[in-house]
Amino acid sequence: MVTLVVEDGKEIVRHAPAVAVVAVDRQERVLLVRQERQAVGGKVLEIPAGILEAGEQPLEAAKRELREETGLHGGEWVEAASLLSSPGFTDERIHLFLATGLEEGDSDPDEGENLELVRVPAAALPGLLPEIEDAKTLAGLLLYLRR
Amino acid sequence: MVTLVVEDGKEIVRHAPAVAVVAVDRQERVLLVRQERQAVGGKVLEIPAGILEAGEQPLEAAKRELREETGLHGGEWVEAASLLSSPGFTDERIHLFLATGLEEGDSDPDEGENLELVRVPAAALPGLLPEIEDAKTLAGLLLYLRR
Repeated sequence: MVTLVVEDGKEIVRHAPAVAVVAVDRQERVLLVRQERQAVGGKVLEIPAGILEAGEQPLEAAKRELREETGLHGGEWVEAASLLSSPGFTDERIHLFLATGLEEGDSDPDEGENLELVRVPAAALPGLLPEIEDAKTLAGLLLYLRR
Repeated sequence: MVTLVVEDGKEIVRHAPAVAVVAVDRQERVLLVRQERQAVGGKVLEIPAGILEAGEQPLEAAKRELREETGLHGGEWVEAASLLSSPGFTDERIHLFLATGLEEGDSDPDEGENLELVRVPAAALPGLLPEIEDAKTLAGLLLYLRR
């Protein structure tokens, strides 16, 4: 998934493109996932996200990941931003979508993906912001609050 | 600066802690830097940022980096967030500060740091948001606009 290369004497981490979704259901609740993140040694509260599979377009990947992780599907989708995670050392790009009016359904998480789903009424988001550590999640929720 | 390790079969990129500053001068202009980022193969418009040096506290590092890159100093500082760049694969944490009322001074950029300084009146920030690709910059500017 990640490759460390040295180009012109500089260490660069190559990373596959990713997608993330600010997912809002028909009851105006935003769905977040809390999961163990080995890289940071603890659980992190994030918007649903994942990596593009070979041949996938970002929107297609975002819809697949959201449905697998949460069961949510349908609704209206817009690309809200195209983010660079940390351009000082990695080329990872995250296509950030806003999906509203989503319908519930059955989820199908990857083996070993231990996800806790957290539903937050849109009106409660401002109070949640100080707890958010994940950069894409903070940017995505702030963009949603400006809509 | 970055180290790729494998822990329990998972590739993780270890990265030193970083700092970034939404820097606002006495004329209510936000100072951004545009620089070539080798990892993404082009120039990126970002808030001033850098890596903690050994023994430095985040606030101290943020003040040093801002002064070196832009000459801005003084003012009022608050830590606005503590961000994880991309917790799916790296432990990089960025301490994000908001500094207002900053005074101009002489900059002292690192050798080879080819920075273009861009001053944006606070009132023009909303129109700039669609151009922002860097995640910490988008989160920082959105937080500043909510203050």
